[in-house]
Amino acid sequence: MISLEPIGHVRSSKHDITDDHWGNVTATIDLDAAFDAASLDGIEQFSHAEIIFHFHGVPLSAVERGTRHPRGNPAWPRVGIFAQRGSARPNRLGATIVEIVQRSGRSLTVRGLDAIDGTPVLDIKPVMVEFLPRSPVRQPEWSRQLMHSYWEVTGD
Amino acid sequence: MISLEPIGHVRSSKHDITDDHWGNVTATIDLDAAFDAASLDGIEQFSHAEIIFHFHGVPLSAVERGTRHPRGNPAWPRVGIFAQRGSARPNRLGATIVEIVQRSGRSLTVRGLDAIDGTPVLDIKPVMVEFLPRSPVRQPEWSRQLMHSYWEVTGD
Repeated sequence: MISLEPIGHVRSSKHDITDDHWGNVTATIDLDAAFDAASLDGIEQFSHAEIIFHFHGVPLSAVERGTRHPRGNPAWPRVGIFAQRGSARPNRLGATIVEIVQRSGRSLTVRGLDAIDGTPVLDIKPVMVEFLPRSPVRQPEWSRQLMHSYWEVTGD
Repeated sequence: MISLEPIGHVRSSKHDITDDHWGNVTATIDLDAAFDAASLDGIEQFSHAEIIFHFHGVPLSAVERGTRHPRGNPAWPRVGIFAQRGSARPNRLGATIVEIVQRSGRSLTVRGLDAIDGTPVLDIKPVMVEFLPRSPVRQPEWSRQLMHSYWEVTGD
């Protein structure tokens, strides 16, 4: 077993997990008191960061270790849990690239983080283009349908 | 504290951490026996996957919680550990997008994984374009210099 310690927590107006409309969500990651604010120095030189976090709201009993229909939708093929990005996965890790909005002391405000208020954050990494895919990305049609409204900005 | 269980381990000809030339490294992730091979079903429909792993070779005593020069290079600015991607970071998590080469049973062969033989793997996520940056990426000059030869393919 590998023991990890949250480096901080998400502060957000979003208190419930929803399937879509994360595009207009602005959230703040507050580093825990054990961290020097300087650990974020220089992050404002980057436009994006990757946030690794723990889907703490998913009960262990819900974790899928085999296959399932993404979002339980029978219109999409049943695929392995490692061929989809749902939260009910072994180790319940999330990894999302966000836009950096502002850094202030030990707080980092970001746009497009699909994690609810109180989520434990395990790492923050700056996005470098050299770490993005270096060849064309291919993905199945079901994943495009699933993602269609994920980042959609709603009026409310 | 959050306890994680490796889902598998890296099998690679690369036994030592090096700063550069990861581009020609092909590695295989073997899922642990506790996992059904079906958990990888459908991953071959994707060209890329993100691998989340544990830098198990980094001693806890080496972990930086404040600032440092990337790679210890004084020519580059001293920045916070969360503004760089070095392995000596809190929780010692790595997250790398790789090319999927082949899936066979509970083994996944990939290209461009910067993790050495024996590395514990914590998650495998398929790459969807919708989860890549949706606005232009900006990054400091030092990071471009640092990454210059990272993926370079060498003749040996």
